[in-house]
Amino acid sequence: MNIIEIIEKKKQNNALSEAEIAFFIDGICDGTVADYQASALLMAICLNGMNAAETAVLTDKMAHSGDMLDLSSLSPTADKHSTGGVGDKTSLIVAPVAAACGVNIAKMSGRGLGHTGGTIDKLESIPGFNTGLSDTAFFEQVKHIGIAIISQSKNMVPADKILYALRDVTATVNSIPLIASSIMSKKLAAGADIIELDVKTGSGAFMKTPEDAAALAKAMVNIGKANGKKTAALITDMDTPLGTHIGNNLEIKEVLAVLHGDGPKDLKTLCLALATNIISLSRGCAKEEAAHLAETALASGAAYEKFKQMVAAQGGDVRYIENPALFPETALAVEVCAPQPGYIAKMDAENIGKTAALLGAGREKIEDSIDMSAGIVLHAKTGDFVKEGAPLATLYTNRETVKSVSCEQFLNAVSFSDTPPQKRALIMGEVT
Amino acid sequence: MNIIEIIEKKKQNNALSEAEIAFFIDGICDGTVADYQASALLMAICLNGMNAAETAVLTDKMAHSGDMLDLSSLSPTADKHSTGGVGDKTSLIVAPVAAACGVNIAKMSGRGLGHTGGTIDKLESIPGFNTGLSDTAFFEQVKHIGIAIISQSKNMVPADKILYALRDVTATVNSIPLIASSIMSKKLAAGADIIELDVKTGSGAFMKTPEDAAALAKAMVNIGKANGKKTAALITDMDTPLGTHIGNNLEIKEVLAVLHGDGPKDLKTLCLALATNIISLSRGCAKEEAAHLAETALASGAAYEKFKQMVAAQGGDVRYIENPALFPETALAVEVCAPQPGYIAKMDAENIGKTAALLGAGREKIEDSIDMSAGIVLHAKTGDFVKEGAPLATLYTNRETVKSVSCEQFLNAVSFSDTPPQKRALIMGEVT
Repeated sequence: MNIIEIIEKKKQNNALSEAEIAFFIDGICDGTVADYQASALLMAICLNGMNAAETAVLTDKMAHSGDMLDLSSLSPTADKHSTGGVGDKTSLIVAPVAAACGVNIAKMSGRGLGHTGGTIDKLESIPGFNTGLSDTAFFEQVKHIGIAIISQSKNMVPADKILYALRDVTATVNSIPLIASSIMSKKLAAGADIIELDVKTGSGAFMKTPEDAAALAKAMVNIGKANGKKTAALITDMDTPLGTHIGNNLEIKEVLAVLHGDGPKDLKTLCLALATNIISLSRGCAKEEAAHLAETALASGAAYEKFKQMVAAQGGDVRYIENPALFPETALAVEVCAPQPGYIAKMDAENIGKTAALLGAGREKIEDSIDMSAGIVLHAKTGDFVKEGAPLATLYTNRETVKSVSCEQFLNAVSFSDTPPQKRALIMGEVT
Repeated sequence: MNIIEIIEKKKQNNALSEAEIAFFIDGICDGTVADYQASALLMAICLNGMNAAETAVLTDKMAHSGDMLDLSSLSPTADKHSTGGVGDKTSLIVAPVAAACGVNIAKMSGRGLGHTGGTIDKLESIPGFNTGLSDTAFFEQVKHIGIAIISQSKNMVPADKILYALRDVTATVNSIPLIASSIMSKKLAAGADIIELDVKTGSGAFMKTPEDAAALAKAMVNIGKANGKKTAALITDMDTPLGTHIGNNLEIKEVLAVLHGDGPKDLKTLCLALATNIISLSRGCAKEEAAHLAETALASGAAYEKFKQMVAAQGGDVRYIENPALFPETALAVEVCAPQPGYIAKMDAENIGKTAALLGAGREKIEDSIDMSAGIVLHAKTGDFVKEGAPLATLYTNRETVKSVSCEQFLNAVSFSDTPPQKRALIMGEVT
């Protein structure tokens, strides 16, 4: 077997065997397959695709390129993944709701990049919160309180790191089997029994159309099932930001509002839908029963208690959880008002995410530092009618210099119309 | 402009602009485009193709990546290129015939590799023949005698060297626009006004089917014309070796036979057809007139004289030309006989070429040395009827150890049948 024959085979649009895929993944990890050979194969995969069986094998081989977490002693365990969006803080609500219903959450999350935020950054906006637990501490915490969220360990899925770096500079990012295997290899390595996926679509999502999102969701669910995981996906709207708060400690405040039974309806609805799926997969019970359990966990305060337990267990200062007013605020708070009356026809999620990053809430490169207090709170959303001069949002920043440009950028992301825009469904589809 | 966007554009099956193609070629030469980016683009070109305009621009930019020969002071000048085959010594006959008819031949040729031979190696089998003339000496010789054949200068078409090395290890060789631009960039850089192409098809050729050969011929003729060259192509058979002699000084002997009015019919026919095209393009005259001129140059001995003049001008020992029996012979001459009676149904050109290489006539790697006397002389060819035990060929070698394996390999390349095989046309098509 040699890599040139493997590339040729995919170029000719034939399916690769398990041994060929293993040869490729082993080769990129040990250096016997050169990066220029890997990129040629990646382009052939982009253009000729991979069938479900190939994609499942690719994902499995990638997952096994590094450490695999064995969570079997904590079963049932669940993981949840969003393909990324603006204002997407669902993990921080779904996890404690599911944990309060008896599903163990032993979860690894990522950091924000570009216009999207990351769960780990948000948690670290709680003073003292430690996302770098040892394996032993992580397991012990899940065993005792049923929930822990930590950042990804360095030895997991090295094949994905190599491939992702290469795809980024060779125009081979945009491929369903490559995206699906990249995400799912990390989920397989993370070891949970249940994987609930939230595949976003719209202006703020990587998948711009519901059709592409559905294809990605289907590919990921197939991979999960082929590798023995209970897997399901929702396809959800990310044309407009989720909820009203964007930015790290601002989103923690919104999470606490939802856990107290308040908060915006879209966020609460989506979190309950995701938690319902996890509970249903875990118990093997009907959706109605699972939904009732999830709603009760939220309404009773059990999910809030679970969240507070997690913060305490991971060294976070629970006074901030009990009294969110303690979270530091930015030096500047700039109100952006409607320049004209009308219905809000569009609030472009990607550009609002970029505005939040400009204010200090996000990073362009992974090594950039972020401002935990910076961000945006929306006062109106797509579909709302606003009068001229009505407040649209407050921008929070410590950067005096970005004040005017960020206001301008925010307003450019918003468009108005005389008639109400067509309503987009929040949950657009489901793949099981 | 950046290379990722350019790769993405070709991945999406859009045509690249002149500026984008220039950016790519400049980038691979100055190192700002990484090899893994180049290979991703090459794979996208393999799978999505390039239109005629893109291919012409790609070729022009490749040609201009290094030295361009300016032959305008020698006009009209002609070049001739074969896509490679076994026993293909046509350049050594076509060039003196055309030169004898007033077309200047200032030609650069290559060396043999794998199962195919090279014009430069064949010329160097003439003791003293210098293929490494200076530019000045090369021009002076063409001005005085109308013919010179030298090896490619090192500074020509560096972009092709980079791309070819990369294509070889990334399964991106097999692409009409990439093959056509690789060949034609060298022809454009070599500066002749007229380019006559001999595109081979069959078992010993890179293009296995006449359809692929026709597509390549069309692409190359388009490139030539788009870049202001008078260009034409013949599509010719390479299912069986051309002529009867394979190997360096053996082929020089066969060339001399043809120049004396003898030699095998297929070789003579093809050489006259190629020379006719060159003369017709150069003079703008009808094919019939050009054919008459070519035949006369051969029959009168004028072409032989031109060949001898070239050998003398480039330092070769003309005694070998006047008396080919002086050429050294190998220590071993092994006759291979027909193991059964019947018609020769097939003489697989590629495997016969590989046998010649094994005998010492060819090289596997460009740095290998070759044995100028080694090779094969065929005594029967495809379509001939032979009795059991009749001589099929004589194998010439100085390598005692390869004797039996090369006989076996030769016989494996030959198959027999009770009925005459269907005759393949020597000249299968023409592109003008």
